[in-house]
Amino acid sequence: MSDRKQFRDLAAPEAAHDAIDSLDLAPDPETVPLSDARGRILAERVDADLDVPGFDRASVDGYAVRGRDTFGADEADPVAFDLVGTVHAGAEPDVVVGEGEAAEISTGAVMPDGADAVVMVERTEEVEADGAVRGVEARTAVAPGDNVMLAGTDIAAGARALGPGTRLTPREIGLLSALGVDEVPVRGRPTVGIVSTGDELVRPGGDLRSEAGQIYDVNSYTVAAGVEEAGGEAKLYPHAGDDYEQMEQLLFEAASECDLVLSSGSTSASAVDVIYRVIEERGDLLLHGVAVKPGKPMLVGELGGGAYVGLPGYPVSALTIFRTFVAPAIREASGLPEPETATVRGRMAVRERYAEGRLRLMPAGLVTDADGDTLVYPVDKGSGATTSLVDADGVVAVDPDTEYLGAGDEVAVQLFSPDVRPPTLLAVGEDDPALSRLLDRLDSPRFRPVGSREGLRRLRGGVPDVAVVAGPTNREVDAVDLGGWTREWGLVVPAGTPDDTESLGDLVDRDLGFVNRNTDAGLRSSLDAAVDDLADTRGVARSDLTDAIRGFAVGTKGVESPARAVARGDADAGLGLRATAESLGLGFVSLGTESVRVRANPDRVKKPGVEQLSARLDALDPVTDGLAGYDPE
Amino acid sequence: MSDRKQFRDLAAPEAAHDAIDSLDLAPDPETVPLSDARGRILAERVDADLDVPGFDRASVDGYAVRGRDTFGADEADPVAFDLVGTVHAGAEPDVVVGEGEAAEISTGAVMPDGADAVVMVERTEEVEADGAVRGVEARTAVAPGDNVMLAGTDIAAGARALGPGTRLTPREIGLLSALGVDEVPVRGRPTVGIVSTGDELVRPGGDLRSEAGQIYDVNSYTVAAGVEEAGGEAKLYPHAGDDYEQMEQLLFEAASECDLVLSSGSTSASAVDVIYRVIEERGDLLLHGVAVKPGKPMLVGELGGGAYVGLPGYPVSALTIFRTFVAPAIREASGLPEPETATVRGRMAVRERYAEGRLRLMPAGLVTDADGDTLVYPVDKGSGATTSLVDADGVVAVDPDTEYLGAGDEVAVQLFSPDVRPPTLLAVGEDDPALSRLLDRLDSPRFRPVGSREGLRRLRGGVPDVAVVAGPTNREVDAVDLGGWTREWGLVVPAGTPDDTESLGDLVDRDLGFVNRNTDAGLRSSLDAAVDDLADTRGVARSDLTDAIRGFAVGTKGVESPARAVARGDADAGLGLRATAESLGLGFVSLGTESVRVRANPDRVKKPGVEQLSARLDALDPVTDGLAGYDPE
Repeated sequence: MSDRKQFRDLAAPEAAHDAIDSLDLAPDPETVPLSDARGRILAERVDADLDVPGFDRASVDGYAVRGRDTFGADEADPVAFDLVGTVHAGAEPDVVVGEGEAAEISTGAVMPDGADAVVMVERTEEVEADGAVRGVEARTAVAPGDNVMLAGTDIAAGARALGPGTRLTPREIGLLSALGVDEVPVRGRPTVGIVSTGDELVRPGGDLRSEAGQIYDVNSYTVAAGVEEAGGEAKLYPHAGDDYEQMEQLLFEAASECDLVLSSGSTSASAVDVIYRVIEERGDLLLHGVAVKPGKPMLVGELGGGAYVGLPGYPVSALTIFRTFVAPAIREASGLPEPETATVRGRMAVRERYAEGRLRLMPAGLVTDADGDTLVYPVDKGSGATTSLVDADGVVAVDPDTEYLGAGDEVAVQLFSPDVRPPTLLAVGEDDPALSRLLDRLDSPRFRPVGSREGLRRLRGGVPDVAVVAGPTNREVDAVDLGGWTREWGLVVPAGTPDDTESLGDLVDRDLGFVNRNTDAGLRSSLDAAVDDLADTRGVARSDLTDAIRGFAVGTKGVESPARAVARGDADAGLGLRATAESLGLGFVSLGTESVRVRANPDRVKKPGVEQLSARLDALDPVTDGLAGYDPE
Repeated sequence: MSDRKQFRDLAAPEAAHDAIDSLDLAPDPETVPLSDARGRILAERVDADLDVPGFDRASVDGYAVRGRDTFGADEADPVAFDLVGTVHAGAEPDVVVGEGEAAEISTGAVMPDGADAVVMVERTEEVEADGAVRGVEARTAVAPGDNVMLAGTDIAAGARALGPGTRLTPREIGLLSALGVDEVPVRGRPTVGIVSTGDELVRPGGDLRSEAGQIYDVNSYTVAAGVEEAGGEAKLYPHAGDDYEQMEQLLFEAASECDLVLSSGSTSASAVDVIYRVIEERGDLLLHGVAVKPGKPMLVGELGGGAYVGLPGYPVSALTIFRTFVAPAIREASGLPEPETATVRGRMAVRERYAEGRLRLMPAGLVTDADGDTLVYPVDKGSGATTSLVDADGVVAVDPDTEYLGAGDEVAVQLFSPDVRPPTLLAVGEDDPALSRLLDRLDSPRFRPVGSREGLRRLRGGVPDVAVVAGPTNREVDAVDLGGWTREWGLVVPAGTPDDTESLGDLVDRDLGFVNRNTDAGLRSSLDAAVDDLADTRGVARSDLTDAIRGFAVGTKGVESPARAVARGDADAGLGLRATAESLGLGFVSLGTESVRVRANPDRVKKPGVEQLSARLDALDPVTDGLAGYDPE
C-alpha cells in the first residue's frame, strides 16, 4: 500500500478552512469598461468628480423668471411678463432674463442668467397681440429656487459616491454613468486552473472507448462551472498522465498562470500519488486528509508560489468539498458575498442513522410537501454515481457526535448552487417513453427510474410525491391513483427477420441470446407472469423454462437496454416495448399489454406539482400520440 | 400642447402586462459549447445516448473473480486463487478469469471476461512462492455482482437525463459531461436594443458641456445592465436626435436586429414625440400611458415585426417600469425564473400618505433594526435625482384605493436587482472627508449627505441608524453618542495669495465673492456663530454683516463645493475645511475648530452595523491620519 492510502492523522475541518484561507488567491484589481462592470465588486471608492446636475436646471416645463417679480400673482390677479426667448434642453441659453421678463424653458434645460425660478406651464397663459405670442401671464407666485434643481443638488463634486466592496447592480451602473465614469476599478476574478488526472478520462465530445474503461471527464467540467459561479475564471489543463516529470511541469505551468490550481482524485490512483509527491517534494504540503466524509483524500498545498487544492474523485464528493472549502475562498478573493439562496432550511423526511465519528457532509435531496414546506432526504450513499449530482440538491453537515437525524428534525441544506430549486414534483418508478414526454410538459419535475417495485417501496417510505408503476403488482400501498395508460410489450428482435422469433416459447425452445430487465421493472413482472402461464400450459416447472432461456437471470436497468443490445447485435431478443422497437427500427413480437399507473402519496395530492401532473394525465392524447402500442386510459 | 402630453385614457397595469406579453420576444434556441452553458436554460430534453458507466466496472480495488468460486470463504477458512493478471483503470483487460482464478483490479477498471465479482483488497492476502506473488487468498465470500457497477447502472442509454426548461448549474453541467455532451441546446437570449433619446445626452467618458445643459446618459446604461441581469443581451444604439426620418431609420434598424427595442423618455420632449409618431404611423401602437405612477409616459408597440417599449425619463422611474413590466417579459423569453431574492418583505418604518387614484410603484429603501428585521421607508418623491437609484432598494406597489400605509404595516419590496441587499448601516448627516474614509472601512454602509440639521431631523423620525452632526447645535434629540472627531474650518482661498484674505472681517469689509454652504450644514452653523460673535464685537446687527458679504445667502450642497468654486476662479473665498483646502491645493484662513459627532438611534445600538461603526470610532487614528486639521476625540 502506498502512503496515500493511509490517513492516520486527518485534519479537523477548521484546519482545512484555515489552510485554504492562508493561501492568497486574490488577484490584483483591474479596470473594466462600464458596460462589463455589472456583477463585479468595486475595488476602491468612487468620488464624484463633477456636480450632478452640472448646472442650475429647470425641473418643469414653463417660464424662467426672477422669483421676486411674481410676488402677489394668483389666479384672479396674474402678473404679465415679456417673452424674451426660449431655452431648450441640451442647448446653451442665448437669453438673459431681466426684470419683468420671462423665457420659455423645457424640463432639464439650463436656467438662463438672471432667472432664479420657473413658473410651471400649467399655471401660465400666453398673451397674444397682433396674432403672435408676445408675452405670458403667471397665475401663481414662485420663490427664488422654485422648480429649479441647483447644480450639485443630486451629487456634489467631491462627494463619496460608491464605496469599495460595492456590488455593481444596474442601479450602481446608473450612478456611475451619471458621474461620467466609463472605466471602473473592480476586484480581480481569481484564475483557477483545473488539472485533469486519470488516463481513462476523455473530454466530452471526444470518442469514448468503453471497452478500454474510458469515461468522460465529469469533475473538471462540474468544478469549472462551480469556479465561475463563485466569481472565478476557470482554466482547464490537459491531463499529464502519471509521469512524475510531466506532472511536475504541468503543475508548475498551471501554478504560474493561475491563482489556484485544483485537481480531483481519479480512479487512477497513481496519478493522484504523483501529484501528492510533486506537492510534497517541490512545494509545500499544508494538509493531507480532512476528518470529513467525504474529505479523506483532500489535499491543500502550495507550489511555485501558487495555491493547490486536491478534491475527491466521486463527482458528488468533489462538488461537496469544492462547495464547502474552496468556493468560499474563491468568493472571498473575488469579493462576492455568499448568495442568500445558497442555504435552505427544511425538515428531515426520514430518520437517518449516523455514527462515524467525523463530520459528514451528507448529500441531500429536497422535496416540498402540500403546504410548500421543505423536506430533506439523504441520497447517494457513496455510490459515486453521476446521477447523484442531480438527485442531491446540496449537503447537510452532520456533527461527528450525532447518532442519528430524526424524521422531522430541522436541518440546513447547503445547496450545490444558489440557483438550485427543489423540484416541483418528485416522481420515482418505472421508466417509460410516454412518461418522459409527460415530464417534458411539467415545470421542473424530478424522476428517478428505480423501477416499479422499488418505486412503490419508496412511495411507502413517504419521500416521493408519486410512483409510476407498470405491470402486475400485488403490493398493497396507500396511494391515490392519478391516472395512466397502457403499453404493448413483448420481445424486441432484429429488424427484417420477423420469422425468426414468434413467441415466448421460441426463447425456451431455441438457443437464442436474450436480454432481460431487472426484477424491479414492471416489464419483468409482466414477463414473469407470461412465463408462469407458459409453464402452466406446458405442464412444466417455471424453472425449467427460465433455465432454458439464455440470459434470463441477468437484468438490465434501462427501458431501452435490451433493445439496444439487440440493435448492437449482442442478442437475439430483448424484453421491451413496441414503441422502443419502432423508434430503434427493430422488429417486435407482441406478448401483451400492461398498464402503467401513476400513484400519489395521499398527503401530496394537493401539492401544485402533483395537481399539474394530474391535469396532464387527464389529457394524455398529445403525450401518447405517435407512440406505437400506447393507449391513454 | 402635443398629443403626447395628454393622458386621457390611461391603460390599466394589467393591460400593459398583456400588451407586452402579446409581443414575441423569444429568439430561436441556440447551441452553445458545454463550457458556456452554465446559467442557460435547456431548450429541449437531453436523453442519454450511452450507458454510464459504459462497461461493467470494479467499484473497489481488489481481485476480480467468479463469485461462485468464493462460496464458503471466511477469515478462518480463506479460499486460494491463482493470479492470472492485472487490470488497470483506463485499460482494456488482456486477461480472462477462469474457475479458481483471480485478476488484480483497480477501482474503475473494466471487469475482465469471466469475472462477475470483486473481492476488496482489504479482505485478501497475497500468497508468495519462491519470493514472488503467485496467488491470492480471499477471506470473504462475494456473490456475483458484488463490488461491480454494471454498465448502465448510473444512467441507461435511452433514459431521459434532463428536461426542457432545466437551468444548467454546475451539477447539470457534470451530468452532461458524463453523457459526453459538448454542445448544449439552450434557450436563446433575447437581444434588446436601447435607443438613446435626447440631444443633451453624452455617453460616459465623453466630454460634457454643462453650460450647454449636457448630462451623461444614465438610463441607457442602467437599463442595459437590467437587460443583461434578466437574461437578455443589450445593444446600445446612438441617438438619432429628433429628426423624423433619422429616427424612423434608426428604429427600423434596431427592430430588424433585436427582439425588443427600448427607449426612455428624455428631457427632450420632441425626441419622444418623434418616436411616438414613428410607432403610430409606421408601426402598431398598442398602448400609450399606464395608470401607474410613474407609468404615464409608457409606450408599447410594434415596429417592423419587432417589439417596442418606451420607458419614463427619470432614472428611478425608468428602472421601476423596466423592472415591473419589461424584465419579467425578458426573463420569460429567455426561460429564466424570477430569482427568489427579487422580493423581500418588511414593515413600514414610517406612515406614508397616499391618495392618487392610480397604482403607485413607490421607491423604497430598506434598513434593518437591531433584531435584523427589515424596515421599509419611502424615498424619492419624484425628484428625478440620480442618487435615488442607490437610496432606493426597490419599489412597493401601493393599490389605487390605499389612503395611507401605516407605520408597522407589512409590505413587499420588489428589489431593483436580486443582488440588492439592505445596507448594514444607514447613516445620514454631515458630509466630511474623515467620514468618507470611515465608511470605506465598513461593510456596505449607506450614507446620505443631507447635512447636520436635516440629519438630526431624520434621526428623530426613526429611520436612519445614525446621524453625523457637525458644529454647534441646540437640537434636543434622544440619541447615543458613539464618538467623533474635530475638524478645522474657515475660509478656503486661492493658493499663493495668503495675504488677500485674513479674517471673516475681510469678507464684510472688502468686495469679495463668497460661496457659502446651505443652512443644513454644520459648517454653516459654525460660520453663523462666528458672524454673531463678530457682530457683538463690532456692536452691529448681524444682518449688517451678512448683507455685506456677497454670496452669503446662497448655499451649496457639497463639503467641497465652495472650495471647488474658488479653485475654478468663480469666487474669492468659500466656507470649508483645512483638509479640503490642502487636498485641492488652495489657501486657507482658519476660523476655528468644530466637533463632528456620530449619534445613534438608541434602538439600533446593538445592530451589528452600528457596533462595527462604534468599534471603528474607538480607533480613529488611521482614519484621520494625513487629514489636515483633524483630531480624533
